[in-house]
Amino acid sequence: MTRHVDVTELVLRDGHQSILATRMALEDMVPICEEIDQAGYWSVECWGGATYDSCIRFLNEDPWERLRTFRKLLPNSRLQMLLRGQNLLGYRHYEDTVVDRFVDKSAENGMDVFRVFDALNDIRNLKRAMEAVRRTGKHAEGTICYTTSPLHTNDHFVEMAKRLQDMGCDSICLKDMAALLKPQPAYDIVKGIKEACGDDMLVHVHVHSTTGVTLVSLMKAIEAGADIVDTAISSLSLGPGHNPTEALVEMLEGTGYTTSLDKERLKKIKQHFAKIRPRYAEFESKFIGVETDIFDSQIPGGMISNMESQLAQQGAADRLQEVLEEVPRVREVSGFPPLVTPSSQIVGTQAVFNVLMGPYKALTGEFADLMLGYYGETIAPRDPKIIEAAEKHAKKSPITKRPADCLKPEWDELRDKASALDGFDGTDEDVLTYAMFPQVAPGFFSTRGEGPKNLSKTAEQVAEEKAKAEAARKGIK
Amino acid sequence: MTRHVDVTELVLRDGHQSILATRMALEDMVPICEEIDQAGYWSVECWGGATYDSCIRFLNEDPWERLRTFRKLLPNSRLQMLLRGQNLLGYRHYEDTVVDRFVDKSAENGMDVFRVFDALNDIRNLKRAMEAVRRTGKHAEGTICYTTSPLHTNDHFVEMAKRLQDMGCDSICLKDMAALLKPQPAYDIVKGIKEACGDDMLVHVHVHSTTGVTLVSLMKAIEAGADIVDTAISSLSLGPGHNPTEALVEMLEGTGYTTSLDKERLKKIKQHFAKIRPRYAEFESKFIGVETDIFDSQIPGGMISNMESQLAQQGAADRLQEVLEEVPRVREVSGFPPLVTPSSQIVGTQAVFNVLMGPYKALTGEFADLMLGYYGETIAPRDPKIIEAAEKHAKKSPITKRPADCLKPEWDELRDKASALDGFDGTDEDVLTYAMFPQVAPGFFSTRGEGPKNLSKTAEQVAEEKAKAEAARKGIK
Ligand SMILES: [Co+2]
Ligand SMILES: [Co+2]
Repeated sequence: MTRHVDVTELVLRDGHQSILATRMALEDMVPICEEIDQAGYWSVECWGGATYDSCIRFLNEDPWERLRTFRKLLPNSRLQMLLRGQNLLGYRHYEDTVVDRFVDKSAENGMDVFRVFDALNDIRNLKRAMEAVRRTGKHAEGTICYTTSPLHTNDHFVEMAKRLQDMGCDSICLKDMAALLKPQPAYDIVKGIKEACGDDMLVHVHVHSTTGVTLVSLMKAIEAGADIVDTAISSLSLGPGHNPTEALVEMLEGTGYTTSLDKERLKKIKQHFAKIRPRYAEFESKFIGVETDIFDSQIPGGMISNMESQLAQQGAADRLQEVLEEVPRVREVSGFPPLVTPSSQIVGTQAVFNVLMGPYKALTGEFADLMLGYYGETIAPRDPKIIEAAEKHAKKSPITKRPADCLKPEWDELRDKASALDGFDGTDEDVLTYAMFPQVAPGFFSTRGEGPKNLSKTAEQVAEEKAKAEAARKGIK
Repeated sequence: MTRHVDVTELVLRDGHQSILATRMALEDMVPICEEIDQAGYWSVECWGGATYDSCIRFLNEDPWERLRTFRKLLPNSRLQMLLRGQNLLGYRHYEDTVVDRFVDKSAENGMDVFRVFDALNDIRNLKRAMEAVRRTGKHAEGTICYTTSPLHTNDHFVEMAKRLQDMGCDSICLKDMAALLKPQPAYDIVKGIKEACGDDMLVHVHVHSTTGVTLVSLMKAIEAGADIVDTAISSLSLGPGHNPTEALVEMLEGTGYTTSLDKERLKKIKQHFAKIRPRYAEFESKFIGVETDIFDSQIPGGMISNMESQLAQQGAADRLQEVLEEVPRVREVSGFPPLVTPSSQIVGTQAVFNVLMGPYKALTGEFADLMLGYYGETIAPRDPKIIEAAEKHAKKSPITKRPADCLKPEWDELRDKASALDGFDGTDEDVLTYAMFPQVAPGFFSTRGEGPKNLSKTAEQVAEEKAKAEAARKGIK
């Protein structure tokens, strides 16, 4: 049996987001776009996720300009983005017309494939974005966040796939952000989706490589019928990132599964990022290699480093182990949410609070909202006692309706506020930037004219800085 | 279908040989032996390969004392070693009675499982060592070195397995030192061996992780019936090393294949080597991550670094690419030898010579010997023109008989020579040390009394050395 397997290249988005803290400047990607465009990928993930935030916060770069540049430089490729459903790329729920506007503008600027997910797998939080994508005629990919808990059975995920299909998605993504997806469940879930949704339903599998087993999971997913898998070019792969694209190609040799990737071009793409990566060394994840402890703690690597720095700020760096043990308890209390942005931060911070101040003595506003249903429904009921505490803390009632249904139309107000900002350019794109990042947008608008910053450093620059620092140190002494 | 899969832990030998240049001192392994002994491994590879050489050359440590220590500290474990057939642990062929003596002494000092291989897969070079192992009643594992070439078909490897079985081996190892074994051939070869040799023949699979695909290959080998697989604890795994033991365990969850490894003990073993590893940073392989170019060049990572340093010594560091392209040609001329010690060095050095001085203008003595059959038979005929050149160079004739058949009894002479050395302790073990490493043994015997050296450095030691060097530099200025 021979079957063609398609591949999504992640290096331009999730690859550098996972390994280089999303700091890569557009100019370091531009020279290799032509090779990427010709290499034979099904799609090129290059936008969304944390890149929008990083562009305006760190790189003084207009994210919409980045998107338009990719559109121009990758004329033969499907451009793909990661979209947090009703959260868009921000950290709260947006009212439906804002969602519509964002999707319209993204499509207009060149986006092809919208991977839409919700951190709680609450399908109501995907619905509006998916409908908006379908209306533009672009590809709407419904996403299942994979996680493990007593309630997250294979059947549960298959049922969710069925509901995504009913919603009219063009493909279904099984998304494993923490590298928890082992080979057998990968096989069973993909098989189950194909059986439930029909062979024609495209299944797209996204895994990270942190635990070291997920290339095997991709093999099993492919054997079960997965149509598209996600990888990153080898020179920006592994650790908290993804399985290497070249390894996937080689793995399939002789199996009857084939990709249409051009190995010579892959080599050039690899060499390009091998050259670029060292210049971003200061942003590089400290974690390389494999960490299978995650299977027990279920805590993604990025979440651990967040909690570490929170503890360090409180002078309690030695209490990490307690926090790691607290996380599963907080997860149970809050109805077993998957741990992915923003639920990972919410659960992690509450676990830190619990350890430092006693269980639920203090609640974060976000955790109270989670308990009260303002992020959506969870797979399991949430602890009534803590819901009560959350009500008192937040001075609001629990809800069961879709969170965005609590919101009033807000576009006009957002436009008015954005218009008042120095450097606002009048476009809907700028309104969206302000809507999603009201704290960061004003600074960005006012400095945008200075052009993008490249935060990478050559070896010479690093040496020079060191020498300067040394000289300064001596001068002070 | 449920089946039990056994595991060999490599960290005490191939793990640190591949990642830390074989420099780990015995005292850094001693504290964790009890956990390793109880973790549920089928065997613990802890001796042979390059460890013997490293003990006497760098660590001032008696390798036989190391073996006896492991025997004492791992009372419930099968101790396993890697033995280069008629080469023993040295770099030339030894006469049969020396081979017998080495095997007897190894068994007597505690060795259980002898993995015996020949760099050319010339089965005649395994025969005597295998017979010697069988006579001691220990486990004789016949080894197939996996490589790729137009002649290395799956059938070829299966036939070799059949011949190893006929020789009376207790198990067959499929050994992939360069991480070239892809999932499908892994499946097909293991399946083929099981079909040809019977289900009862134990199949043991050894892979490195350099190319990133070999954990999938282990999965496929297991599906095909492999009984035992080799891994290294995660904190000393990956890159030029091996797949992580913990990842193997997790990978199999739910598949119906089970290991009997104790995850809590694995965690302790992992933590131990995570603590030890940074102290050997200066010996650490520069190469981490994944390198799939090896599939095209078929050149193991260690061999590339050898060639790089040879070129650098000749002021020709810029000619590596030419050498990499020359290697496959040299391999074809010499009958497609697998690239493993010592054939990797022989082929690599000749490739360097060819690039620097013109093709076969100068021959190394070892390459001439290889061409003339003094290392054994190759899978393909060797180039007659270069054989002729080798005859002239080496002033000897080609042979077709087993190389060791050219040797006269040498034990008594070896003992006489060893006896003349300062510090020789009169044992056969010392004679063997001298026999295998005549250049290194005299120095080692004379300094042995000072006890083992630990080459690792704590962070404080590194800082102190740096400060001292800085001070010295300033003093000189
Ligand atoms: Co991801
Ligand atoms: Co090895």
